[in-house]
Amino acid sequence: MNRAFALCLLFVPLAAIASGGADAAHHATLLLWIAVILIAAKLGSLVERVKQPAVLGELLVGILLGNLGLIGIDVAAELPSEPIIAFLAELGVVVLLFQIGLESNVQQMLAVGARATAVAVVGVAVPFVLGTMIVGPWLLPGLDAKAYLFIGATLTATSVGITGRVFRDLGCLQSPEARIVLGAAVIDDVLGLVILAVVSAIVTTGSLDPTGLAWIIAKAILFLTGAIVLGQLAAPWFSRGFARINTGIGMKLTVALVTGLVFAWLASLMDLAPIVGAFAAGLMLDDVIFRDYDRPQLEADIDRALAGADADTRTRVGAAVQAHRHRHLEELIAPIGHFLVPFFFVVTGMHVKLDLLADPHALAIAVALAVAAIAGKIVAGLVAGPVNRWLVGWGMVPRGEVGLIFAATGMGLGVVTASTFSVIVIMVVVTTLVTPPILAWLIRRQAP
Amino acid sequence: MNRAFALCLLFVPLAAIASGGADAAHHATLLLWIAVILIAAKLGSLVERVKQPAVLGELLVGILLGNLGLIGIDVAAELPSEPIIAFLAELGVVVLLFQIGLESNVQQMLAVGARATAVAVVGVAVPFVLGTMIVGPWLLPGLDAKAYLFIGATLTATSVGITGRVFRDLGCLQSPEARIVLGAAVIDDVLGLVILAVVSAIVTTGSLDPTGLAWIIAKAILFLTGAIVLGQLAAPWFSRGFARINTGIGMKLTVALVTGLVFAWLASLMDLAPIVGAFAAGLMLDDVIFRDYDRPQLEADIDRALAGADADTRTRVGAAVQAHRHRHLEELIAPIGHFLVPFFFVVTGMHVKLDLLADPHALAIAVALAVAAIAGKIVAGLVAGPVNRWLVGWGMVPRGEVGLIFAATGMGLGVVTASTFSVIVIMVVVTTLVTPPILAWLIRRQAP
Repeated sequence: MNRAFALCLLFVPLAAIASGGADAAHHATLLLWIAVILIAAKLGSLVERVKQPAVLGELLVGILLGNLGLIGIDVAAELPSEPIIAFLAELGVVVLLFQIGLESNVQQMLAVGARATAVAVVGVAVPFVLGTMIVGPWLLPGLDAKAYLFIGATLTATSVGITGRVFRDLGCLQSPEARIVLGAAVIDDVLGLVILAVVSAIVTTGSLDPTGLAWIIAKAILFLTGAIVLGQLAAPWFSRGFARINTGIGMKLTVALVTGLVFAWLASLMDLAPIVGAFAAGLMLDDVIFRDYDRPQLEADIDRALAGADADTRTRVGAAVQAHRHRHLEELIAPIGHFLVPFFFVVTGMHVKLDLLADPHALAIAVALAVAAIAGKIVAGLVAGPVNRWLVGWGMVPRGEVGLIFAATGMGLGVVTASTFSVIVIMVVVTTLVTPPILAWLIRRQAP
Repeated sequence: MNRAFALCLLFVPLAAIASGGADAAHHATLLLWIAVILIAAKLGSLVERVKQPAVLGELLVGILLGNLGLIGIDVAAELPSEPIIAFLAELGVVVLLFQIGLESNVQQMLAVGARATAVAVVGVAVPFVLGTMIVGPWLLPGLDAKAYLFIGATLTATSVGITGRVFRDLGCLQSPEARIVLGAAVIDDVLGLVILAVVSAIVTTGSLDPTGLAWIIAKAILFLTGAIVLGQLAAPWFSRGFARINTGIGMKLTVALVTGLVFAWLASLMDLAPIVGAFAAGLMLDDVIFRDYDRPQLEADIDRALAGADADTRTRVGAAVQAHRHRHLEELIAPIGHFLVPFFFVVTGMHVKLDLLADPHALAIAVALAVAAIAGKIVAGLVAGPVNRWLVGWGMVPRGEVGLIFAATGMGLGVVTASTFSVIVIMVVVTTLVTPPILAWLIRRQAP
């Protein structure tokens, strides 16, 4: 009987069907939570009234939702660790960096390549030296020397999601400052890999394996150059291939999204952050690659309506339509971004537990550490060349989750203690929250 | 130390951070699988070459992916039960029914209300009687009388996702036949609730609790009338309120999506399917409700470009733009649909395990059961009034996952045996797969 049943079962997840009630209820609850997160994010955009970028509002409503437990409402406490919500947040930042990549291209990024590299190298070296040799031993005396190595490493990481979003919220993604920060953040991710490998090797084996290190660097460079060079060759071919099946807008959107997702996966295969891959895919793709696909229906309808018009009108309306055509891909991805990106920032905010701030000693040390973290990146901004160097420096300030992964690795190796870890966590929160208002202020100040 | 740590911990999911490696790797793998599912769905749309609706292709590539195990490649075997993929599939069908609702409105649905009700009632009564009294005892002799009740109940359920998608793929959502089928499917969901409650009560306690039954019906009617009546009053107010924060396209999209998600949740709170709620929300919303929001940038640019044109051209181009304005909300949701809807159909396909079809005895019984299931719905089509009755009847045929939930409930109560369950599963698969080509053929035949 049992065997016949196993043989006969046409649908796999019998357990899922049998427990359909529980699963369905969980899914329905998630639908509500998705709605709550989306609407909370939009309520957060009230901060635009006080000239702050919307992303700050999303972080703040996240902090509010995540700390309702402090006033006895713990309904949302488990939410940021709910696997589906956590994945939507990750997918959100991947889509964000893909969108940011779409608004630029490889040539524009290469044009700022040297300056971005300089900013990245200084922005890693200065905070590392500061953390390892000066502020670490001074603020947290008596720790093992290896702990200071990890504190220094934590100070080097740049998390590009916050800055990219601020530049985007304020319409500055096309500025040279934004490009330098984005380029530097990508290089930072590679340098971060190297530092993490070196520091971990020193702590665990006491020595460095040069082959392993070379391989880490080689993989990262292989991905960045290989994906972009081969990608630029393959993308038009891939795009034309799928246009033979169907030239609809759904196909165009799918081919673009799939490219972003595959690049994100490839990046993580090379130990880089998935967002680096999504950004590279966005840089590579543009509307020219998709010229075989259908035009938006509205364009065709307008063309028809213009048939009898004078040449002058046709030229002017044609120019207005043309100005939008090269943004069509961005406009297609935009709704998916509106849907997914807020998850990343609201969930990031929800991870912040305010009760930690109640410990004045830890808070003081963390703020001092944050000042060092900020100073190190502002020094990096100074080598950015003839641009607004403050903007570049502050753009590199947010540490985000990258710093936490470093700190958690140190804790896993038994080098970073729990109390040091919590200090690092506050430092990350401080750098994340002070950056949006300061960037907004710097951008407004330079606008005419 | 431990307490200090607990106090000091600013971020909740320490475990998630510490296990960041494993989580990150799982997320990266999912990014790849999402890409695979999306691109497979688009490869499936090759069936359009042989004049089949794209949804059939999505189901077929799903079956292909889900049965790679038969040729020794079991890489995708676990995928349909992966919680995140399963949720994306559920979200996909919610978005689909929301989109289908957006293309119609409450008045249009009420206009076919009486006919839809007739179709639903006949389409539930005939298959139930057929299953319980005739084909059940004839095809599967010797079972408990209670088992036949469940077989009959399974034959009543209509799963509207497949049919809605076929009508949409073929551009027929505005036909009276499509409206009757959609309305009947909603009423079917209510009748299904009642049948499941009645049959379960008879099987478990042997008697019926009239108060409980009245409450089930009351809740469903309360939701359908209440949500639509109150919703139509509240939606403009809700929409204007959020327009005060921000009139951007992102806000418009979010307000619409959130309405769909909250209605889906409310429906499931009333024990209705979430897709019924999403459909009701879509019916309720239209672009008029969102008139306080920004117009698409292209429209404003075209207006400016038309400043010097003659009155005739302005009128014609204005009409072309106007024709799109009332579809702006649908166009905003469309990319999210292109992203999420394929998950539902590919995952549905992946659930089909072909090895069951190797049992000729079960297959024969299941096909006979499917014939009864189809006949019952075709009889229902006959009461649809002066429309293409075959189209209505066949539109009600797919049983989808609703029938499986009934069968699984029966198995949970110990009434439906494992081999009966597998027969029911094949019946569901047959009704799901034969419907798209037959509907496409019926629609093409009636087109001039």
